[in-house]
Amino acid sequence: MPTVFERLLAGELPCAPVSDDDLVFAFMDAGQVNDGHVIVATKRPCATLMDATEAEAAALMRAARRIAIAVDAAFAPAGVTILQANRAAGFQTVPHLHLHVLPRHDGDGVTLGWPRREPGLERLQALAARLKPHLAAG
Amino acid sequence: MPTVFERLLAGELPCAPVSDDDLVFAFMDAGQVNDGHVIVATKRPCATLMDATEAEAAALMRAARRIAIAVDAAFAPAGVTILQANRAAGFQTVPHLHLHVLPRHDGDGVTLGWPRREPGLERLQALAARLKPHLAAG
Repeated sequence: MPTVFERLLAGELPCAPVSDDDLVFAFMDAGQVNDGHVIVATKRPCATLMDATEAEAAALMRAARRIAIAVDAAFAPAGVTILQANRAAGFQTVPHLHLHVLPRHDGDGVTLGWPRREPGLERLQALAARLKPHLAAG
Repeated sequence: MPTVFERLLAGELPCAPVSDDDLVFAFMDAGQVNDGHVIVATKRPCATLMDATEAEAAALMRAARRIAIAVDAAFAPAGVTILQANRAAGFQTVPHLHLHVLPRHDGDGVTLGWPRREPGLERLQALAARLKPHLAAG
């Protein structure tokens, strides 16, 4: 079953398009957190960043940069937050790879809870050692 | 004054490095939200995504993809969240362009408040029309 983003891209559902290239397309999020809130999604349906090609990943952030610059010029937000969520536990709601370009204002009601632990350098190095063999195969 | 990330890159402060290329470098976040939490930062000091070159933006997400795939393999998180914060109002704490690759687990204490409004298609199209002239110049 096609995701809502596939249906937007196919013109089966209406949206307010912003830009596109060979790999990604951008449109106004129907649920605007703040004015100027844009979604950038891949044209090819793939679920997560981990399923994307390297070219698709790069195209997403190239588009995010251009849109963030335009959002700054058009809406003069105090900040910009980029969120890219993968799988439900990662805050993903539509299972089609996308990111949010979110203009931000002081007191806009967006909140992030972020419980940090500081395990120390030795433990960090052990975690890096677990990760690196999997990067080599990337 | 150099940021903490410049000092890490210069070897003036210790860290647990993960990977690097010509444009970006990755290391374990000293404040691990969950095991496997990685920061990817630009080698060139620039403050935000809006100050980055297109190549730097692309390199950040290419690295994030490779690291997210490795995090999936090494730590088997339930999800992965990518966060890239610009200016204090956008949740940025270190004024040097970076993103977080955040392995996620159900009940891990990470929370996101996201107050959506649904202004309707006509208003979305008006917002897109404000944005597009600034994209053309990107």
